[in-house]
Amino acid sequence: MDFEFKFEVTAVDPHTQARNGRFHTPHGIIETPVFAPVGTQATVKAIRPSDLHELGATLILSNTYHLYLRPGDELVKEMGGLHNFMQWDGPILTDSGGFQVFSLSDTRKIDADGVTFQSHHDGSRHRFTPESSIAIQENLGADIIMAFDECPPPNDYDYVKQSLTRTHPWLERSLAAKTRGDQALFGIVQGGVFADLRAESGRFVTSLDLPGYAIGGLAVGETKPQMHAVLDVLHPILPQNKPRYLMGVGAPEDLVNGVMRGVDIFDCVLPTRLARHGSAFVLGGRMNLRNAQFSNDPAPIDPHCTCYTCRHFSRAYLRHLVKANEILGHILLSTHNLHFLINLMQQMREAIRQGTLAQFGADFLQHYGE
Amino acid sequence: MDFEFKFEVTAVDPHTQARNGRFHTPHGIIETPVFAPVGTQATVKAIRPSDLHELGATLILSNTYHLYLRPGDELVKEMGGLHNFMQWDGPILTDSGGFQVFSLSDTRKIDADGVTFQSHHDGSRHRFTPESSIAIQENLGADIIMAFDECPPPNDYDYVKQSLTRTHPWLERSLAAKTRGDQALFGIVQGGVFADLRAESGRFVTSLDLPGYAIGGLAVGETKPQMHAVLDVLHPILPQNKPRYLMGVGAPEDLVNGVMRGVDIFDCVLPTRLARHGSAFVLGGRMNLRNAQFSNDPAPIDPHCTCYTCRHFSRAYLRHLVKANEILGHILLSTHNLHFLINLMQQMREAIRQGTLAQFGADFLQHYGE
Repeated sequence: MDFEFKFEVTAVDPHTQARNGRFHTPHGIIETPVFAPVGTQATVKAIRPSDLHELGATLILSNTYHLYLRPGDELVKEMGGLHNFMQWDGPILTDSGGFQVFSLSDTRKIDADGVTFQSHHDGSRHRFTPESSIAIQENLGADIIMAFDECPPPNDYDYVKQSLTRTHPWLERSLAAKTRGDQALFGIVQGGVFADLRAESGRFVTSLDLPGYAIGGLAVGETKPQMHAVLDVLHPILPQNKPRYLMGVGAPEDLVNGVMRGVDIFDCVLPTRLARHGSAFVLGGRMNLRNAQFSNDPAPIDPHCTCYTCRHFSRAYLRHLVKANEILGHILLSTHNLHFLINLMQQMREAIRQGTLAQFGADFLQHYGE
Repeated sequence: MDFEFKFEVTAVDPHTQARNGRFHTPHGIIETPVFAPVGTQATVKAIRPSDLHELGATLILSNTYHLYLRPGDELVKEMGGLHNFMQWDGPILTDSGGFQVFSLSDTRKIDADGVTFQSHHDGSRHRFTPESSIAIQENLGADIIMAFDECPPPNDYDYVKQSLTRTHPWLERSLAAKTRGDQALFGIVQGGVFADLRAESGRFVTSLDLPGYAIGGLAVGETKPQMHAVLDVLHPILPQNKPRYLMGVGAPEDLVNGVMRGVDIFDCVLPTRLARHGSAFVLGGRMNLRNAQFSNDPAPIDPHCTCYTCRHFSRAYLRHLVKANEILGHILLSTHNLHFLINLMQQMREAIRQGTLAQFGADFLQHYGE
């Protein structure tokens, strides 16, 4: 059964590159621009699927490397696929495993065919190739799957250039290995911080007719201006009628800057990771709930926020939970931080519809200082 | 403002000592017999207040020792009391701190006036007396507060007998120290496993006209027959028209045996603690989700259970979460285990209304083998 992964552009902002879209997947329509919470091990940490729905999440991401190692993609397949396993009936995206494997810098070995690596659990040896990554992602059964690529150190020109000679053939092999008709394979543009390499990679990747294109290798050490420059280089190269996914990016200011530069999809562990460290997104920057100044503060994190956490709980109580390392602290801060990003995307979608995104973005960036 | 802590007995089982009751508190009526989830640090671990409501919890317990040390009872008072602080609008019971302090066996010193102890956080020195325990509990502001008592080793006759000469004056001092009219002070019967000491303590404690009476010092090392014998000794001594609270007891079979022996209120950390260790209550005993046999088991913990966890998730997924130490595993297993006990109490309340508790209890105890 071949699914038609249609992307409809429903509104275009007159003053920026932003647009509203509807991306059709077998598990529902994703309204873009969208932020995808990350469920690394088949769970968005500390959040139940029903609460994700309530938060307004549509697309979530899960990780091929982690699920391959535990519980194993064959097991997930046997349990009816990732949607059934984790009981998320909305769209899911899986990464290719490449990023995690290349992060294991001490214990992995790259060759032209693939990567050999050691499990971070038990040191056991494994190998990923474009073919095995696609096979794993077919077992997991996400709606959107990613080509196997290398995420190189962004500032090393020679390495990045050389790396493209692996990543591009791997995209062709990923596409050739794909057998399921109900999964959208996105290609990934690499090229580090270098305009010429990004352009080269963008032209190659978009020479293949794919249902979507991703921008990889950012938020890994480059500066914000460098990130924006890469998006600006790619804007005219990436086709307007396909969704654009900026991988691993989720800081609020990056979402705003990304949307204004035409990005449709984002994902990041930041909101849930910050939460587990006791930090909350607020206009004006991050609020560290460990701070003693909040010990007797009866106000919620943000008096204007409508999330479950802010409707009920004081900073004083949240600080107590964080200091006591209580699970409820993780739950409540994760809830707030996810709501913050999902709500920000919703506001941007509305601003695009109204043609006012430039003003919205300027206001936001002025008030949101980290 | 003096609140009338009325206890109405609404049904009496014809074949056991069980009864249904309604205990009126400033934060609502508690239908008894009832199981109270424990929120040691002002949170029932891994469960949001709204989920506690959905689970059918009415009364919850919190701990004086822990809250005195962190965040401090003065702070909780400043934040509007425990109900407001933790956003639980139902009835709350606080213990006296005695049990926790006496558990610090290496670092506490008992005298006739009170107990000096060291904080388990930082080793700092503190002192509890009946007067200070009541003052702390008044700051916390629970609906039901407990007299300061000693929980002695249950099998040492001479020690337990001697301990009663402290605990009984401490009850009188607790009562004298009480200033608020909107909190019900319960006295605590001690006496270890010894019938004569339990009877002596029961007669002394009930000689004071209190809104409820607790049975302390059980589930701390005695056998099940010894626990039942203590309840049988106390049944004719405790007044019928006051609620009876069996402290710290919450294993399913103990709830059934306790209700059949006239107990109205229970509390225990067991359901949430077991959950964090990967175990679930089921008829037939406990299910350890770490067990490899569940790795590809598509069934829920209990196909007949109506909790959120069993309505959605397979044993295979729960095992994955437990093995991966994911917070969602704690959330889902805590949800199931609390539902199991709260639902068991609900079934027992219904059986008492129907006059069929003896049969229900016999059936349950036959099927629930640990």
